[in-house]
Amino acid sequence: MNRELRIPVQGQGLYDVTSHVAAAIKEAGAANGLATLFIQHTSASLLIQENADPAVQVDLQNWLNRLVPENDPLYTHVEEGPDDMPAHIKSALTSVSLSIPIMDGALALGVWQGIYLWEHRHHQGAARRLIVNIQSS
Amino acid sequence: MNRELRIPVQGQGLYDVTSHVAAAIKEAGAANGLATLFIQHTSASLLIQENADPAVQVDLQNWLNRLVPENDPLYTHVEEGPDDMPAHIKSALTSVSLSIPIMDGALALGVWQGIYLWEHRHHQGAARRLIVNIQSS
Amino acid sequence: MNRELRIPVQGQGLYDVTSHVAAAIKEAGAANGLATLFIQHTSASLLIQENADPAVQVDLQNWLNRLVPENDPLYTHVEEGPDDMPAHIKSALTSVSLSIPIMDGALALGVWQGIYLWEHRHHQGAARRLIVNIQSS
Repeated sequence: MNRELRIPVQGQGLYDVTSHVAAAIKEAGAANGLATLFIQHTSASLLIQENADPAVQVDLQNWLNRLVPENDPLYTHVEEGPDDMPAHIKSALTSVSLSIPIMDGALALGVWQGIYLWEHRHHQGAARRLIVNIQSS
Repeated sequence: MNRELRIPVQGQGLYDVTSHVAAAIKEAGAANGLATLFIQHTSASLLIQENADPAVQVDLQNWLNRLVPENDPLYTHVEEGPDDMPAHIKSALTSVSLSIPIMDGALALGVWQGIYLWEHRHHQGAARRLIVNIQSS
Repeated sequence: MNRELRIPVQGQGLYDVTSHVAAAIKEAGAANGLATLFIQHTSASLLIQENADPAVQVDLQNWLNRLVPENDPLYTHVEEGPDDMPAHIKSALTSVSLSIPIMDGALALGVWQGIYLWEHRHHQGAARRLIVNIQSS
């Protein structure tokens, strides 16, 4: 089963999509199996990270912005704005797909794990497309 | 099939878990399919790397420690110790899930590939939880 | 179904393998499911990136070469040439496996997404081994 999701975003940051993926699993009625999340973009990515202290997300964003700054003279792909090439690099360093086991009808996440869409561009009012694939076993 | 593993760790470093994953495949009796490994933590991660020369693992650890040092003034999430926020960043830069084809009843790894749990924290005497999902085809 | 691919490479860079993966899906006759790509090497990796402007690929390569330079005095694994340890680190920072949903008999890639083998070594006339696993649902 494949289910398409559209996630509204409002600029750079981590957007928690755990409940969307959990809903797709419930809808599919899968008791045991594997959920795979795929993002159809190259300037946003996927991440599983701690969902307890919001400071973790702030630090992740600030650290990655420092590692991959805007307006680096190295960039030649600059036509789509100063945040575009950094977004491609950040996407390359993180994940386009993530697979999570399904056990007893639920995502087998660790206690502090949340699933995030990591938006790397500044644009407002956009939406990102994800696909949840479910393999039952 | 999902099989839970607990891997004891003794501080930072790469822990070879290849034989544990291979045992789960043998137990499941899968001739062809896909094995997916998932780690239920956000301060340790998964990696497939060369298993021939131990110097590769030493260099990987030292390089990542230099890229993501402790006590960086950027960090605001500091309550859980100086190794905690670096561990989250290292986890974000590596993998939470890995999928490996199963062919003729065995993991279809390359000649020099080993599967590692990469522990990013210093704590001693801990154990990390992994799940091996097997899809037969 | 697992299908083995051999991709010729001529030194560092991104090699588009999208059509090879698409052909494996057509051959398997999968209408809906999940395609997983796995690379059997630790000095080359997998990436999904923009396939529109070739400058993106140039910038990705130059950025990663600057982050992980050759001849870094940190390296102790130096017997296989100055490009070998950087290749292992680059491989660790990108992906060894990628999973892409199959919808209506085709890869559910975004409009601008291409699948690439990212070769991190300089050697000429080599070939890299990939496996495409297909799970139908």
